[in-house]
Formats: sequence, structure tokens, C-alpha cells
Amino acid sequence: MQRILIIVLCILCGRLCLSQNAGDYLELTDTKPHDDESVWNRIPASPQISWGSADIRYAKLNVPELSKTNTWKTKAWKGERVNAQAVIWTKNAMSDVKITVSDLTAGSSVIPASQITSSFVRYVMTDELNKDGKGACGHRPDKSVWDSSMVADVLYKPEIEEIRTYTTQPVWITVRIPQHAHPGVYKGIVSVSGKGFEDLKLNLEVTVLNRVLPSPEEWAFHLDLWQNPYAVARYHDVPLWSDAHFDAMRPVMKILADAGQKVITATIMYKPWNGQTEDHFDSMVSKVKKLNGSWEYDYTVFDKWVEFMMRMGIDKQINCYTLIPWALKFDYFDQATNRMQFVEAKPGDAAYENYWGSFLKNFSSHLRRKGWFDRTTITMDERSPEAMAEAIKVIRTADPDFKISFAGNYHEEIEHDLYDLCIAYGQRFPEDVKAAREKAGKISTVYTCCSEARPNTFTFSPPAEATWIGWHAAAGNYDGYLRWAYNSWTIDPLRDSRFRTWAAGDCYLVYPYGYSSIRMERLIEGIQDYEKIRILRNGFTDKKATGKLKKLDAVLSMFAADENIGSRNATDDVNAARKVLNGF
Amino acid sequence: MQRILIIVLCILCGRLCLSQNAGDYLELTDTKPHDDESVWNRIPASPQISWGSADIRYAKLNVPELSKTNTWKTKAWKGERVNAQAVIWTKNAMSDVKITVSDLTAGSSVIPASQITSSFVRYVMTDELNKDGKGACGHRPDKSVWDSSMVADVLYKPEIEEIRTYTTQPVWITVRIPQHAHPGVYKGIVSVSGKGFEDLKLNLEVTVLNRVLPSPEEWAFHLDLWQNPYAVARYHDVPLWSDAHFDAMRPVMKILADAGQKVITATIMYKPWNGQTEDHFDSMVSKVKKLNGSWEYDYTVFDKWVEFMMRMGIDKQINCYTLIPWALKFDYFDQATNRMQFVEAKPGDAAYENYWGSFLKNFSSHLRRKGWFDRTTITMDERSPEAMAEAIKVIRTADPDFKISFAGNYHEEIEHDLYDLCIAYGQRFPEDVKAAREKAGKISTVYTCCSEARPNTFTFSPPAEATWIGWHAAAGNYDGYLRWAYNSWTIDPLRDSRFRTWAAGDCYLVYPYGYSSIRMERLIEGIQDYEKIRILRNGFTDKKATGKLKKLDAVLSMFAADENIGSRNATDDVNAARKVLNGF
Repeated sequence: MQRILIIVLCILCGRLCLSQNAGDYLELTDTKPHDDESVWNRIPASPQISWGSADIRYAKLNVPELSKTNTWKTKAWKGERVNAQAVIWTKNAMSDVKITVSDLTAGSSVIPASQITSSFVRYVMTDELNKDGKGACGHRPDKSVWDSSMVADVLYKPEIEEIRTYTTQPVWITVRIPQHAHPGVYKGIVSVSGKGFEDLKLNLEVTVLNRVLPSPEEWAFHLDLWQNPYAVARYHDVPLWSDAHFDAMRPVMKILADAGQKVITATIMYKPWNGQTEDHFDSMVSKVKKLNGSWEYDYTVFDKWVEFMMRMGIDKQINCYTLIPWALKFDYFDQATNRMQFVEAKPGDAAYENYWGSFLKNFSSHLRRKGWFDRTTITMDERSPEAMAEAIKVIRTADPDFKISFAGNYHEEIEHDLYDLCIAYGQRFPEDVKAAREKAGKISTVYTCCSEARPNTFTFSPPAEATWIGWHAAAGNYDGYLRWAYNSWTIDPLRDSRFRTWAAGDCYLVYPYGYSSIRMERLIEGIQDYEKIRILRNGFTDKKATGKLKKLDAVLSMFAADENIGSRNATDDVNAARKVLNGF
Repeated sequence: MQRILIIVLCILCGRLCLSQNAGDYLELTDTKPHDDESVWNRIPASPQISWGSADIRYAKLNVPELSKTNTWKTKAWKGERVNAQAVIWTKNAMSDVKITVSDLTAGSSVIPASQITSSFVRYVMTDELNKDGKGACGHRPDKSVWDSSMVADVLYKPEIEEIRTYTTQPVWITVRIPQHAHPGVYKGIVSVSGKGFEDLKLNLEVTVLNRVLPSPEEWAFHLDLWQNPYAVARYHDVPLWSDAHFDAMRPVMKILADAGQKVITATIMYKPWNGQTEDHFDSMVSKVKKLNGSWEYDYTVFDKWVEFMMRMGIDKQINCYTLIPWALKFDYFDQATNRMQFVEAKPGDAAYENYWGSFLKNFSSHLRRKGWFDRTTITMDERSPEAMAEAIKVIRTADPDFKISFAGNYHEEIEHDLYDLCIAYGQRFPEDVKAAREKAGKISTVYTCCSEARPNTFTFSPPAEATWIGWHAAAGNYDGYLRWAYNSWTIDPLRDSRFRTWAAGDCYLVYPYGYSSIRMERLIEGIQDYEKIRILRNGFTDKKATGKLKKLDAVLSMFAADENIGSRNATDDVNAARKVLNGF
């Protein structure tokens, strides 16, 4: 266990960051009012522990409100991951604290401890929705306008140096049921040990049902969370695309692969979104304009990134951004001036066609050589149908077989051109269109962003809202879900999730060093539920079990995109629905 | 004749510039005190003309002080160029004024009019030496500290739209004696015609001697005036290295070739002099750092520039700047980041050796392939001998046969490594060193810059000082002369020669559109004198004409680099010396 608190003051960049080896770190201070000593002094002298709820972000400086429970029981399919949260609270500091979990056993059957992840839940600074409560978009230049607080979200290591006096410290447990586990009731022990206190113990009990959830790469759910490799290089201060960079990305992208992600986010130009994130995306393709006016392209970076992600298990689709960026300037290295230069042109202009037409022809050949052409799409987002039509023309001229993706409002006039069409939350595909798309093997998904107050995955969002998303996708007959930012980290993402725009946590779902989050784990739960619904529905349909199908539809009707999620309680809805699901 | 005054206000760059076709243009206003109407009204009503002196920059708004002369007589060698200046002055405006020169004839022998260039001399804004009178270096952020005035320097076309009321307008005549002219006394007529006045006429008489000056490409004088192609592209607002760019450079570089220039100025990195000129020099070689750390180089621009200059007739040497720039950062296109990046390292550092060692090896191969290796040098200027020694090590490691150039103070310890060594004005090569260098075929020259109050080629310098330089080179047994700027133009070089640093005219000797200058033509005179001295000395030595050799040495002794040129009169010295020279 690492004893030394390693905080490296990055003087050069003028900010506090973590050293490479991710030793323990100091959280920011929560200045919100909280339980005072008199409240804390009412609890026993020895550290307390109990099972809590994975639906709650326990306040760090309050005595948790819960009735003490020693045993957590859940049901799970073979192949499923289940999450539980325990809570430690103490009026005396604890040091060198460590969680261990035993094997889970059911008679002679064993779920080995290696299939169980335990994490101390760490706290990160967050803010809140916009004051009108209707969303979280827009710039936030003055942080003081939005109230800030520390919330439990980071799923840290199972060791922590210190739990301070008068502190609540949650513990997150994830059990991965092996695909080939025997059904049965598995039992084990969670222990918390450390210096100066007796080991704390909890019982864990998982009833494994005789149903199988396939492994994530076989999930039908089309998950598209946009990766930002540039943020990882910057955070870890390693050269882009170096071995150290890939080493730093590996644990981060592992979480994504394990969530069943289908899409590699690739960028084929400088700043597709005009640098809206802390680290702008750059071009993974070098475009060189020779002195004689001809173009040369280099795919070394693109290939290396794609191959890395494919090795991680994310290999179904490569989405290439973008032909219509948010600022219409297109980068290239200019041999004459020995400088980066930019073509400024809009779809329909001759200069636009020259820049993109030439590139796309070459890109098509390259993709075909690599055997990737059929899984690659040229991708646009949130642009007008007129601009889209011009861009589509250029793409089709370069290679009529190019697949095209779009995320944005539903536009009937371009729908048929789009292989992968992701529409905004609240919009529906016309039923006949969805059916035709399905038949044609086209992808039809839904996205959320800063616009939605609820459901969302801000660091302050109730955890169940992340699960709600999977249910919503199932209810709306979407093929999956897209979110524009998986890891566009803020400057100091482990400590402060607030950003210069949007509500805190909008830019990333997971943390450096492969630390997952309550949000990410609960999102995966929803995806698992989507898969379970799909499998059950297929089974019921095969068996013509109309009663069960009706029951399923009734449950799903709770997850329509209406205003209800604002007034209703996503947590209650998800819990009620899952109870039905696991009862089938 | 172009009638329309074309002044294009370059709104984008916020400055006034000339349109591409170099029509007539407005000079800036001279606000210095000058002759008033009462003085001007004393001259006759009709325009006046007379031969003047090529030593004088006639004031534009003063009645010239001269005794009217109708015939100009001079002596010239076959192959020589001779310059004369006439002056027009008028109290009534003249329009559509044009100079024509007849053929010069001597019996049946003819020097055709095509060998005679006539130019109206135009006025450009200048400033002055530093206030201590000791030089002209340093920044000049506040132009008002240095007195400004308009001086005659630009050798414009032989047509001018208008000579205004109360104006002096000089005329410059250059006669190029053909190599195969018969000796004799050639006579012709210079005519000035226009609207509303009788033609003005002057007689021109050149006695061609029976001696031959070789053509410039055969001159021994090692002339090294640094070219700046970037200034030409910017001034004419044409893409770098485009046909239009080369078209614009052609007349400018033609003057240089005709002056016997030996050296092509090439740049192999970004900003060798940290951008000290209006247009910084950039790298003519693209250096690409591949993702795997290997380097790739592209010589398209370098080759195109060198081949262009060679076609212009400047083909003896290629000087490549520089391994030790004034700011130690070295450019490359980085494939990983898709950006220009810089290696910051100093000679002796591993990163320096990696950057330069790899490049120089590749460059050597390229130069050998092109057949240019033997005439290429890696070039440094004004750096310490310690840094030089480190750089030399890197060069020798890459290819022990690389030639190396240096311009700066004389350092004994590195002298033997330097193929082309140019030392500062006032310094001398030890006699044995010079002799050994000569024997080894090495070049040993001298340079002036802003340090010298006199001799210099500022726009306000007395014209004879430019000629003095050639005599100084002969007197000091230098092989030639270097000046750091041939055409590093200011923002508006035709109108304003002042710059943010140094005295006006320091950055350029010639003007856009191939307009030469009084300074440039007088510099060439000195180079011709150097050649004539060399030829005469060889003849005298062959014939053991010790008397004549003594006489030559006595004349040359006037041109030593001492403080005398400050107190003495360069014009008188040059005229006296040339009289002796043409008397041999």
C-alpha cells in the first residue's frame, strides 16, 4: 500500500494534478453545512458499517440515514454484473483502510473473489442544474452563480490511507457473475480492515438465476460514448500516441469495452467541435498539400488508434468526425509555407469539395485496404439538413458506398442516407421508418446531452437516472444510446468535475487511471436491463406468452420521454421495473 | 504609358501597397525645409536639364547646385557598366515625361540603345545614423527620435507621369559596354520629352578602352548578398513558391546575378534570425517526425528555389542557414500531434544532435544526388566559437566532407574548419592564414552591417561609399564582400525605407519590380573596380611592372578600414583612385 500522499504541483501548467502512479490524493473541501460534532458524537466510538443503497450518493460529512443491515441480497442472471453499496461512518479517524471480499460460495460452486471489485467511493466537486431547473446548457464563466458541493462518484481503489474523524465513507461492490456459474444462492463476506479498529464485516448474498446474459461484445445495445484520447495524453502529460499514452488509455477504455461499446470515435480534422472540451480533438490523419497542389495523406495515427481500440474489444464501428465541423476551417500541412494552414469553406463551395473529395477518395481506398470500409462511417452531428445534403453529395461522389452517421434532430429528407442515425432525446422514429431501417440493418439510436435536466449523468444526478436511460431506450424501441463525452476530462477531473460550460460531469463518465463512477456502473445496469428485456421479449414472443409481453410493455411505459421524469422519481421507477424484470 | 495612378489600399493588412503592375505611385511628402518659390522663380520658365554627378543625391525640392553641362564624358573598359546622372529641374509642372537614349556611335561602331538603361530617380523616406554618429544599430521604436527625410535612391522606369512645379528630378543612365565593342569614342544623345515643353537634350560620350572586363559570372569577387524570397511573396501578395512568386522574383534576382553574385541564400529551418526582418525566413525543407520517431524530409521547395536561382545565373554556392539560429528552437511537423512543433536544444545537447544529425545525413545524400554537394555549405553567423565547435562536430559526424561557412568575428580556433569565412569590417586575416586559405581554395571575405556609420549603403549614405566597399575589399586582400540583406523589404519599401531597427535602407539594396538603386549600381561599380585592379595587378606582376604595382598599392592604401572614412571623404577618395585606375 502506498503510504505517501503524492500530490505533484504542476507548476508549468499552473494547476494541481496527480502524479502518474495515482497514489492517494486529497479531495477538495466541502464547505456546505453538515452534521456538527454533537450529531457525530451520538454514534458509538468504534467505526460503523452497514449496507446502504446504490441509489444514494451519501453525504461525506453527515451521519448516514439508514437502518443498519448486515446482509445484502440480490438476484442476478449468469453473466450479469450487480452493484451494491455499503457505508462506513466513524467519529474516530481510521487509517490504512482496506476492503477485502471472500469468494462467494453456493455449496461446492464458487464465484471467485477475483470476479468481485470493491472500491472506496471518492468525492468530487460538482455544481447543479441551471437555475430554471430545465437543463444544464450554456457557459458558466462565474462558478459562484451555481452552487457547488462535493458528491460521491469516483470508484477508487479498495485501499485508502485515511478515513477522517466525523466522516462517512461509502464502499462500492460489483460482482460479475461468470457466464457459466451454476444457479444457486452464493454467499460471502465483505471485510474492512485497518489500523486501530476491529475488522468490520458484512454478508453478501447473490441468487444466480438460470438465465444467461451474453458477454458485452455480444450485446445488441448500440452504445456510443465518444472517447477523447487527447484528454488522456494531456492529463498524464505523456506524448500523444506514445506507449505511455496507450498505457494510460488502456484501463479507461477497458471500462468502455466492458460496457459493450460499439463505436470507435475517430477524428479526421482539426477541432470538429471547435475546441469545446478542455482538450480539443485533433486530426488523426495528416493531410499534406504538396507544392504542386496535390494532396498526400498519412494514416499512421488513425490506424494505431483504431487498432488499439479494436484490441480493447471495441471493433464494430468507426465513426469519423466530421465533414461539417462547428467552425468551417479544415487543417492541412502546407509544404510551400512549411506551416499548418486552413481551408475555410462551407459545404457546396469548390474549395470544400476539393479538400474533402480528394481526401475521401483516398480514405476509402485506405479503409478498404485495411478491411475496415464496411464498419466505418463519415459522421456529422447537430448540423442543418441543407448542409448535410451538400456533405452527403461530396461523400457519395468520393465513394457511393460510404456509410454516413448523424446525431441530431430527426430530418425526414436525409434519413434514408444515414446508416447510423441518432436522434435527440424526446424525438421518435416514425414506426414504419424504424421498421424499414431495422430491415436494412441500419442503426437508430437516441442521445441525451446538457439539454436534459433529467434523466442525466451529471455528477450530481441521482444514480438511478443513468439506469433509466437503458429502460428509456428499450421503451422507445431505440437500438441504443449515444453520449457526446465519455472522457473529455476537466483540468482536474478526479477532484473537480465542474467545467466552463454545462453542468458538472457532462464531459465525462469515468475518471483517470480506470476509476469508474457510480454513474457509469449504473448506466451499464440499464444496458444490461435493455439486453434482458430484449432476451425475455424474444422468448415471450417465441412462446406467444402474451400476458408476459403485456406486463413487460406496461413496465416499459413508465420510461417514455415526457416531462414526467421531472416530477416522478426515476429511482422508484427503475427499482419497481427491475423487480418485475427479475420476477419473470 | 500607364496613365492611371494605381494605389491599392490593402485593407486586410492595414497598409498601403502597390498593385502588381507597378504603375506610377505617389511618393511620401518631404516636410524638410527647402527652397521656396522666390528661389525657384529665379530660374527660366522652361524646364532645365544638365549633367550632374552620380555621387550626389539631389534634393527634390531644391534648385540643384551645379554648373550646367551638356556633355558627359567617361572612359570604360569593354564589358564594363558605367553610370551617369543628369538632373531636370523645373518651375512649371511637366507631364508624361519620357527619357530616350540614342545608339552610341563611333564611326561605324555602335553601342546599341538597348545596352543603355535610363531611369527616373525616385525618392524614398529615410532616417539617419544614431545620434552619436558611430553607427546605426539598435531598435527604433519611436521614429520621431531619428530625423526623417526623402532621398533620391530608387531607379524607376524611364517614364514618369508628372514632374511637379518647383521640383528637381534626377535621371540615371547606365551604359553597358559590350564585351566585343571596338575601342573608340562613342557618342549619343539623351532626350527628355513630354507634354507642353520642348525636348531636352544632353550629349553622352564614352571612350571605350582596349581592356576587357569579363562578364559578371566570371568575376572573381565573391559577392554574397542575402536574398529573402519571403519578402517578395508578401509584398506581391502571391502564394509562396508559386509561378507568380517566381515571376515577381525574377527581375529582382536578375540585378543580383548581373552584379556577379555567387551565393544562393537557403534556409533549412524556421526563423534563422528569430524573425528580425519584416518577413522572417522559413525552412525550405519540410521535416516530418513520424509517429515511430523516425524523420522524413522533403526538399521540393529547396530544390525549386535553388534551381530557380541557378537558372538566374547564381550557381556557385548554396549557403544553408543555420545550425545555430538566434533562438535555439527547431521546427518540424509532428505526425502525432498533427502540428508544427519545435525542438528546443542547444549545440551539445542530445536533442540537438538527433535533430541535426539525422537531417544532415539525409541532406548530404540529397545534395549528392542533385550534384550540389560540393557547392553547398552549412552556414552560421555571429555565434560564439564554442557553439560553433559543437555545431561543426555534428556536421562532421553527419558527413565529414560538408563545407561550412561562417560570418562573424575572426576566431583562430575554428578558422581551419571554415570553407567560406567572412569576417567583420575592421578585422584582417593574418597574412599566412589568408595565403593558406587561398591555396586551399577557401573563400575569405569581409562584411559590413549596421555597425558601420561609414562606409555603408543606407538610403542616406553618400553613393560613393557603396563603391568604396569594392576598393576596401581589394585593399584588404579579401576575396569579396557579404551583406546580410539584399531584399528584406520593409512594409512599403518603395516609399519608406525606415524599419523598426537599424538605419533606413539597412534591410535592402534594391526595390520591388526589379527597380535598382543608386546604392546598388554604385556597389557594382566598386566590384568592377575590384576586378579591374585584379586584372591589372596580374598583368603588372606578369610583366614585373613594379612601378605600376607600387602606384596601385599606394592608391589602395587609401581604403584601409580605419576611422579615416569618418573624417575623410569617400567620394573624393573613390574619384581620385578611379582616375588612377583608368589611367593605367
